[in-house]
Amino acid sequence: MGEKPLLDRVALIGLGLIGSSIAHAARRKSAAGHIAGYTHRAETRERARKVGFADSLHASLADAVRDADLVILCTPVGVYGEIAKEAAPHLRPGAILSDVGSVKTAVVRDVGPQVPEGVHFIPAHPIAGTEQSGPEAGFAELFEGRWCILTPPPGTEPAAIERLGDFWKRLGSAIDVMDPRHHDLVLAITSHVPHLIAYNIVGTAADLETVTQGEVIKYSAGGFRDFTRIAASDPTMWRDVFLNNREAVLEMLGRFNEDLSALQRAIRWGDGEALFNLFTRTRDIRRGIVEAGQDTAAPNFGRAKKD
Amino acid sequence: MGEKPLLDRVALIGLGLIGSSIAHAARRKSAAGHIAGYTHRAETRERARKVGFADSLHASLADAVRDADLVILCTPVGVYGEIAKEAAPHLRPGAILSDVGSVKTAVVRDVGPQVPEGVHFIPAHPIAGTEQSGPEAGFAELFEGRWCILTPPPGTEPAAIERLGDFWKRLGSAIDVMDPRHHDLVLAITSHVPHLIAYNIVGTAADLETVTQGEVIKYSAGGFRDFTRIAASDPTMWRDVFLNNREAVLEMLGRFNEDLSALQRAIRWGDGEALFNLFTRTRDIRRGIVEAGQDTAAPNFGRAKKD
Repeated sequence: MGEKPLLDRVALIGLGLIGSSIAHAARRKSAAGHIAGYTHRAETRERARKVGFADSLHASLADAVRDADLVILCTPVGVYGEIAKEAAPHLRPGAILSDVGSVKTAVVRDVGPQVPEGVHFIPAHPIAGTEQSGPEAGFAELFEGRWCILTPPPGTEPAAIERLGDFWKRLGSAIDVMDPRHHDLVLAITSHVPHLIAYNIVGTAADLETVTQGEVIKYSAGGFRDFTRIAASDPTMWRDVFLNNREAVLEMLGRFNEDLSALQRAIRWGDGEALFNLFTRTRDIRRGIVEAGQDTAAPNFGRAKKD
Repeated sequence: MGEKPLLDRVALIGLGLIGSSIAHAARRKSAAGHIAGYTHRAETRERARKVGFADSLHASLADAVRDADLVILCTPVGVYGEIAKEAAPHLRPGAILSDVGSVKTAVVRDVGPQVPEGVHFIPAHPIAGTEQSGPEAGFAELFEGRWCILTPPPGTEPAAIERLGDFWKRLGSAIDVMDPRHHDLVLAITSHVPHLIAYNIVGTAADLETVTQGEVIKYSAGGFRDFTRIAASDPTMWRDVFLNNREAVLEMLGRFNEDLSALQRAIRWGDGEALFNLFTRTRDIRRGIVEAGQDTAAPNFGRAKKD
């Protein structure tokens, strides 16, 4: 407040959970003098207007990105290519074109060729989110204490990388720079495969004949309910993640399946030692996550105590 | 307080998360005049003494269960048989012998034959817990708003079932009565398989060569951290669950694997529609769980907002 904004104009293309959270955080932290929002549906623009996190809302991509210092793609990654193509002629020289997608090699593949000379293309991925979506779901604290991974192509101007990093730091994040392929492998195991198996088990539970859906819901406090939270995430976003990180997801899923087969075998043959050993080993990783400040130590994630 | 206790003496055999939570809740809700606690390790008795949730702590099983109206086994299920055998001669006629185990057919199999004439044997399973364990982990609200499933053998005296149900209601739970086999199927999908795949993916992540354990920890906020909470649960308890619910777990795991293979195929062949359809369908179950009061509607389970 009163502080000089870090950037004059930031354009957010897509106004769901992440886009709206960036807007809230940028406003609170004085990271942008003007926040321009674009979303192609009139109804979503109207919802965004009601929440009121943007300084201007646009039905035209050209109008949204014009004169922006930083343009951030916040739509599902499946439409990045066409958006980049349409926006490209209207980007100002020296602007940074970035994104928030959960996959990075596909973004380099789809957006890279559209980027005009003089525009800095720096894909990024803030590792933060909730299971909720839409312009009402955003909040300013979403990125605080979280990591944001930048995957600049070789030869990107260091000053531009620094500028984008400063923007994310202002929103509360810590910055890492990574190769896009490595990013996609890391996220396949820390995010994509966990989402896939959460969606999968919720689907399996819904399709049983021997156990009713009502029973699954009633007795979900035994562990299942945690999976349903993840499986309530935005379907379009996640479809696009899996279509665009196929190789890394299939690789990690192969590992997961191998390990699960071994566990299945241990159960079938009553090998309690193998089970006990794995179940002991996995506690260390939880401890590491809590110590790294990436989750709360409170039991049940600190859900209301009665839970 | 001041209220006449529901039962005169309750003996808790095993003083971990569940045993200590029963003690806290029974005391607060005046469900027991005297709470006797047993655990075979002197060190655990000492820890329980420090927390102070029991009226008496015993190194002898016979002393703990003597004169108890209700004896509840709260140890891992793998040792139920030998405990029941040792305690049996000391149970008073008319006492209820119950438990809190996550499997029920194995409990009927192991404990049933040990139960003396005149003692009411009613296995039970409160669907509640956290990832923490030990006598310090318990709290009085754990069972509030949760379901407790009773699986009385055919011919059990209805008044005894009602007495045990009243005890759990006093602790805040709602009661269901179920066949033990059906219980084991329901819990296989709502609890056991979710725990197994959570343990499994955390193990897979720990063993990768292409992604370091440090990276897995740093970037866990993308979804993985939810799984690590579940995979931090008590190893002995969970080993015993899988060894004692083998058939139902393998059955449900078979379904899970079939469905996962179909998803894997959809990813490999780029079938976005199949992915989108599943990802949409799974939201309904989440909604049902929140509406049933079995989880919070707050994003990220209402973790501190900055998470």
